[in-house]
Amino acid sequence: MHSATDIRKRPSQERSRQRVGKILEVAAERISEVGADQLKMSDIAKLAGVPIGSIYQYFPNKSSIIRSLAESHLEQLREVVLENLATVKEAPDGDDVAAIQLMSNRIIDTYYSFYLNEPAFSALWGGIQADAMLTELEVKDTQETADILHEILKPIFPPMSEARGHALTLVICNQIGATLRFALQLGEEQGQELVEMLKEQIGRVARSYIEERSAP
Amino acid sequence: MHSATDIRKRPSQERSRQRVGKILEVAAERISEVGADQLKMSDIAKLAGVPIGSIYQYFPNKSSIIRSLAESHLEQLREVVLENLATVKEAPDGDDVAAIQLMSNRIIDTYYSFYLNEPAFSALWGGIQADAMLTELEVKDTQETADILHEILKPIFPPMSEARGHALTLVICNQIGATLRFALQLGEEQGQELVEMLKEQIGRVARSYIEERSAP
Repeated sequence: MHSATDIRKRPSQERSRQRVGKILEVAAERISEVGADQLKMSDIAKLAGVPIGSIYQYFPNKSSIIRSLAESHLEQLREVVLENLATVKEAPDGDDVAAIQLMSNRIIDTYYSFYLNEPAFSALWGGIQADAMLTELEVKDTQETADILHEILKPIFPPMSEARGHALTLVICNQIGATLRFALQLGEEQGQELVEMLKEQIGRVARSYIEERSAP
Repeated sequence: MHSATDIRKRPSQERSRQRVGKILEVAAERISEVGADQLKMSDIAKLAGVPIGSIYQYFPNKSSIIRSLAESHLEQLREVVLENLATVKEAPDGDDVAAIQLMSNRIIDTYYSFYLNEPAFSALWGGIQADAMLTELEVKDTQETADILHEILKPIFPPMSEARGHALTLVICNQIGATLRFALQLGEEQGQELVEMLKEQIGRVARSYIEERSAP
């Protein structure tokens, strides 16, 4: 059901969304070129072709632009996790180790190519321009992703306390992020070797827990 | 054997060493209070009670102080690894899993308490004030520590290519550092749970490789 207000508002909201999108896009490009440190509101206005007042209408300061970009990165990565969860739930032959390996391989590959293809991500998160706000966002995000993973692994792994289960998934999630970011710092060849080794380690850990489940 | 030059130089070198030590000590305190970003050469001079020209005599700029401190942290942590290597080599009863577990537990505990007790470490490395130079130092240091670990694990683990062995130890070293730094961001209780889980994971991975060694 539409009202007159809806009709009056919609085009303007659509324009706002496009404008905010353009501002973030330009900011991401600029960050990947000069780093978040050197990002300037006036440069963003110039590159986005919008009056600087219009930028301040959406973002009170540079920090809020960086935060929006960082949140958008985390959201996209969260999508990757959610999309791949089904893999482990639908393992047809009951081979839980293979199912976990498949799920984690897909998540790792998609994360890694996201990192490689989003230069603003590296500039913001790669240790080059980290700050307290990003650290806090990352801790919160890792905790949330670990909670999701915990729900998935709980019925597959042997029974353990909530605290241990949470610590386990937290270590895994943090390890995936840390190893991939470290891989980005190495050359392509050594980076890829590290990614393959990360997958192997997760497979070994999964097998270790699942074997424990069926041990006498 | 001493010469006249030795005698003339020694006290002055000793004074220099003490002065450099004092400058770094004061800088570390200051960084833990205000962050490396807000560190000022003039504050260091004032707090150390030395003329600012004397600071520039040893350190051309702020970056070189930060680098010296960072290198000193890495050196102290490298000592921890080297001191504990003997544990795995001297396992009396041939239980390699237990020996690796003991060695890694000791390294992890000592690293974690170093992180906890050296506030300047967190301020410099904890993701709050990382920069390109520190990232580069850390990559180099992790590679070197991994090389040392690789030599230790090579005769214990099943045969694997140099590249795989190096990737394996690199993932382990990076995981230890990343998990401990992440643990610092959490509260004490959850942080400690993470540290215990990290130890458990290393034990499981070691067991997985060692069982593979004796598999038919």
